[in-house]
Amino acid sequence: MRLAAPLPPGSTVGILGGGQLGRMLALAAGQLGLRCHILAPEDGSPAFQVAAAHTVAAYTDRAALEAFSAAVDVVTYEFENVPGETAAFLAGRVPLAPGAQALSTAQDRVDEKTFIAGLGLPVAPFAAIASEQDLAAAVQRIGQPAILKTRRFGYDGKGQVKIAPGSDLAEAHEAIGRFPAILEGFVSFVREVSVIAARGLDGSFAAFDVCENEHRDHILAYTRVPANLSDGASLQAIDAARRIGEALGYVGVFTVELFVLEAEGDLAERVVVNEIAPRVHNSGHWTSEGAQTTQFHQHVRAVCGFPLGSTARRGRIEMENLIGASALRWRELLAEPGAHLHLYGKRDARPGRKMGHVTRVSDERA
Amino acid sequence: MRLAAPLPPGSTVGILGGGQLGRMLALAAGQLGLRCHILAPEDGSPAFQVAAAHTVAAYTDRAALEAFSAAVDVVTYEFENVPGETAAFLAGRVPLAPGAQALSTAQDRVDEKTFIAGLGLPVAPFAAIASEQDLAAAVQRIGQPAILKTRRFGYDGKGQVKIAPGSDLAEAHEAIGRFPAILEGFVSFVREVSVIAARGLDGSFAAFDVCENEHRDHILAYTRVPANLSDGASLQAIDAARRIGEALGYVGVFTVELFVLEAEGDLAERVVVNEIAPRVHNSGHWTSEGAQTTQFHQHVRAVCGFPLGSTARRGRIEMENLIGASALRWRELLAEPGAHLHLYGKRDARPGRKMGHVTRVSDERA
Repeated sequence: MRLAAPLPPGSTVGILGGGQLGRMLALAAGQLGLRCHILAPEDGSPAFQVAAAHTVAAYTDRAALEAFSAAVDVVTYEFENVPGETAAFLAGRVPLAPGAQALSTAQDRVDEKTFIAGLGLPVAPFAAIASEQDLAAAVQRIGQPAILKTRRFGYDGKGQVKIAPGSDLAEAHEAIGRFPAILEGFVSFVREVSVIAARGLDGSFAAFDVCENEHRDHILAYTRVPANLSDGASLQAIDAARRIGEALGYVGVFTVELFVLEAEGDLAERVVVNEIAPRVHNSGHWTSEGAQTTQFHQHVRAVCGFPLGSTARRGRIEMENLIGASALRWRELLAEPGAHLHLYGKRDARPGRKMGHVTRVSDERA
Repeated sequence: MRLAAPLPPGSTVGILGGGQLGRMLALAAGQLGLRCHILAPEDGSPAFQVAAAHTVAAYTDRAALEAFSAAVDVVTYEFENVPGETAAFLAGRVPLAPGAQALSTAQDRVDEKTFIAGLGLPVAPFAAIASEQDLAAAVQRIGQPAILKTRRFGYDGKGQVKIAPGSDLAEAHEAIGRFPAILEGFVSFVREVSVIAARGLDGSFAAFDVCENEHRDHILAYTRVPANLSDGASLQAIDAARRIGEALGYVGVFTVELFVLEAEGDLAERVVVNEIAPRVHNSGHWTSEGAQTTQFHQHVRAVCGFPLGSTARRGRIEMENLIGASALRWRELLAEPGAHLHLYGKRDARPGRKMGHVTRVSDERA
């Protein structure tokens, strides 16, 4: 189901997933006078702390989903691995945004790349891998280095392995558990950027300024805005987001991650689409203090059928992720003039765990 | 009790009062990774929707207060009419901020005016009224027009009546229920302003820029920042706040409302202190988008023993209160570029009820 009209204040937004993204969505919804109901399998999920109601249940628990759908006015999600049956079950009972097509496309790397390439947008060369034979043939065709990734459920570098000259292909296939996979040609990029964009119920489109992302150990470490990017490549990136959003009939905030290729000979600097996330995104956290509308407010606006907000930027912004023990610097960060600390209410600062982030805004004209 | 050290992330902030101020405090605390537990007597209070836990109980319910104090790491409040015994009971069990002295001073208009005048700060002439005889004598001394107000529990113009030449004093006394009262001389002001200030656990002080308030029917309608105020009067207002905070040994955000008197002859423009609110305040809502740190974050920082945040202003700001049916304009406000809508999650838009507010920020240099 799609929403027929904007939800009135006091409506309840259902959110699948109880992590920091759900938490920040709930905080934004709270500012707009909405109630949130979170459904997540883990007891004590961070988003529960700031929501009017929560349900601890597996995403496939039909009785729980039935009750959840009856208690909310719209359903959205904070992560792309919502099972397809769950999305279909809910969408039959209550408006779901973004819709099931965005989910299924983003859940499978081969479907995703096929979809993006089908829009005429540049992607890395890729091949679907079902067997070691497929892998050998694909390496032959695509060349090396290349990256072998599971088609489904990969994130933050999990479920992927690099293939270089001399790699043992059987071992590589084993390393990703012999799951259905994709081989992607290595793109020799100079920078990674992303576009956080939104599409409203009425088909309107709004993108935040392209941001530049620095990963460490496959996890986002810093986002800086504006990105170090030519105007041409920036327009190309935002246009890619617009076409992706339209083709998916998307409602809500989504993220397009791209590689930046250096200008070379007659070729100007350009971008290649890496992947799509049908949700608010870590690389959009800078919007909380750096833009007129935050990505979380924008998503809530879109899924509730409200007009999209202004994406105007407020200055130069850096977002630093606080991963694992780096969150123990909270006192120092609270004392730093101009630093905006966000913590997610997670108890244990385990290595690699996203505990919070901090944004720093500086005046562009200063 | 006073807090001995900054609270670690994941701590629980107890808030007395479940209205919009408690709600916005909880949203700010949520961003900082804290949990909130709200205690309020009304089922369905707006703040419950965004808090990890809530207790529906009278403020004098000792069993409920006992359990509440055991469940939280610090207690604060969103309103100044917390009963003195409640504050004392809690302060014996858990750190309370702001402390009981601030509450008792602000709860009684005679004590408040006496305290302010005792600091050498300018206030309107006033007299304590216990009887109609007192009133007649006070009118004689202070002159007319004057305002008769109950000593306790007045807000938004409730519990007050104007006395002008020809007023029937018995009738006026009757109109405020013959409660213990104060007669205040009428101050012929040109503007009303307020200072939202904070004092940290370490005695540090920070004030936001003075803001100008426009009331309609005794309810705040608009706040504009910066105030139309001379530098001298502005310094005088902030200095008054600093001295009040120090004298109360205050921890948290507080508000000083002042009248502005026009320059006259040799006298420069100057301010007269009207009243103190030991809490975040409607006239500080502009800080949500208009300052580096919001008043709600600042209060949470102070009561948790964190360093105070920057009070730097972001531009020219107007805050418009959405009272009663004016909140029905929400669609229009969501569509207005640059307008930031805040709704409080209240169901019925009754006349005079504060339903939400909207801030508009414009670039000072544009």
